[in-house]
Amino acid sequence: MTSPTTWEPRNPLFEQVVRQSFSRQTHMATLGATIVHLAPGHVHLTAPYAPQFAQQNGFWHAGAIASLADSANGYAAFTLAPAGTDVLAVEFKINLLAPARGEAFLAAGRVLRPGRTLSVCLAEVFAQEGGSRSLIATMLSTIIIRGRAADA
Amino acid sequence: MTSPTTWEPRNPLFEQVVRQSFSRQTHMATLGATIVHLAPGHVHLTAPYAPQFAQQNGFWHAGAIASLADSANGYAAFTLAPAGTDVLAVEFKINLLAPARGEAFLAAGRVLRPGRTLSVCLAEVFAQEGGSRSLIATMLSTIIIRGRAADA
Amino acid sequence: MTSPTTWEPRNPLFEQVVRQSFSRQTHMATLGATIVHLAPGHVHLTAPYAPQFAQQNGFWHAGAIASLADSANGYAAFTLAPAGTDVLAVEFKINLLAPARGEAFLAAGRVLRPGRTLSVCLAEVFAQEGGSRSLIATMLSTIIIRGRAADA
Amino acid sequence: MTSPTTWEPRNPLFEQVVRQSFSRQTHMATLGATIVHLAPGHVHLTAPYAPQFAQQNGFWHAGAIASLADSANGYAAFTLAPAGTDVLAVEFKINLLAPARGEAFLAAGRVLRPGRTLSVCLAEVFAQEGGSRSLIATMLSTIIIRGRAADA
Repeated sequence: MTSPTTWEPRNPLFEQVVRQSFSRQTHMATLGATIVHLAPGHVHLTAPYAPQFAQQNGFWHAGAIASLADSANGYAAFTLAPAGTDVLAVEFKINLLAPARGEAFLAAGRVLRPGRTLSVCLAEVFAQEGGSRSLIATMLSTIIIRGRAADA
Repeated sequence: MTSPTTWEPRNPLFEQVVRQSFSRQTHMATLGATIVHLAPGHVHLTAPYAPQFAQQNGFWHAGAIASLADSANGYAAFTLAPAGTDVLAVEFKINLLAPARGEAFLAAGRVLRPGRTLSVCLAEVFAQEGGSRSLIATMLSTIIIRGRAADA
Repeated sequence: MTSPTTWEPRNPLFEQVVRQSFSRQTHMATLGATIVHLAPGHVHLTAPYAPQFAQQNGFWHAGAIASLADSANGYAAFTLAPAGTDVLAVEFKINLLAPARGEAFLAAGRVLRPGRTLSVCLAEVFAQEGGSRSLIATMLSTIIIRGRAADA
Repeated sequence: MTSPTTWEPRNPLFEQVVRQSFSRQTHMATLGATIVHLAPGHVHLTAPYAPQFAQQNGFWHAGAIASLADSANGYAAFTLAPAGTDVLAVEFKINLLAPARGEAFLAAGRVLRPGRTLSVCLAEVFAQEGGSRSLIATMLSTIIIRGRAADA
């Protein structure tokens, strides 16, 4: 009993528009994040641990982890959006399951429900250390899809 | 009909321990964040807009705004924690009410309920532009208070 | 530093449409809930404790408290909606601050940001016992406003 | 890449204590809910549609759906709790993906991370209609595990 995991993209150029938009997110470049998987309804991002985004104990700050998960979910929604639109997070909720320690972090975002106006996405964030991987956070997001003129 | 807004600190050195912990959060230094208000149950942080933390349209990324609000809420909880403890966010939820555009951002965190184990905090985030201020986000957080040995 | 608390209604008959819609919510009647305050951007609901909505220790179930807060927030949003529309909760998050014990419960919902499509509301839920009142829950909700035909 | 789905129970009598606690939740009896699946880390509840728990359009109220999902998640956490403890929801967030219309509703709760103090659970809620099943809601919950004396 699981939710569906494959979807039909409405924009045949979905990969291109996702990559273009991602390349404009300076915050992702600052965090060192890259796209490691991109398919209809799915976007995975990874970033290496870097000491300048830490909380008081040296682990990654919850906000840095949330940044990665938010972009993974937003772009997962964007893979299914029509041409000529943009996506914005309306809200998200993240549970931090374990301290964010590791060599790298992977945020795997996927669409639970693609909507004309609102999409709902779920991301799992994993810490990677020496070949092993553990779940450190889960994010549930609501994304709004808007005509691009609306942002101008 | 409002929730209480003043609290008794349990650690007389609360200001010192909050400032020390905040100074160890490299992520706050990276964002350029500083503490502008600190009182029992209340912490306000501000950060100037900087282009390296943007989303695809040049506004601050939701994760950068969430970073600021998460630290404001965490340190608001920490002002009321006993000596010898540390705080960690268990989870948070943020509603992004308007695009994060402005010259600077202010996250005002306050404790709704201080607990022995769990505290609940609410942050409002404002964008500041030319003397005016508008609400752009609200975050509701659950913070766990732990003996410091637990982090070792 | 607070968010605004007064708003201009867009439908002069807002009170009537809120009361009519509320009267169709059989779940509110089942819980014994009534409207005790209704103003632009604000709806307060109250319900007496009743033993048939309890969790395992006899307190009100989190879902019963959430029901009250969800309707308070939804109708707070509805007070500011244009004529000919309906409201639906997109999502909500509730923090349960204390066990729901008391003679009655009061959910005070208010709009944080009224939107054309999405409104964000915050509810505080209080338990009432012998003249005193304590905060037991806080809910942050996203409400969508839709043309009524969309529901048909 | 998924989170683990099987867990070791710490209380060999987990099934018995879950069923006993569930039988004391009068709110579940009021909603007509029953346990249809119970395994370590997993609890599924079902309830038939009943008109007295509706919102303004006759669908189930978001609070009724949340009630079912909250109990599914709470009891999923309880299957993994030590003997002599009780569980309480600290907070939850629910996304309502589609109107709650159908002959019956099924809430499938599972543990994402079982903790000594806090467990995190995810529930999917499905509407059932004439043999087909569709996802209508997703809930992410934080559950606290406490010694039973703490409730007295």
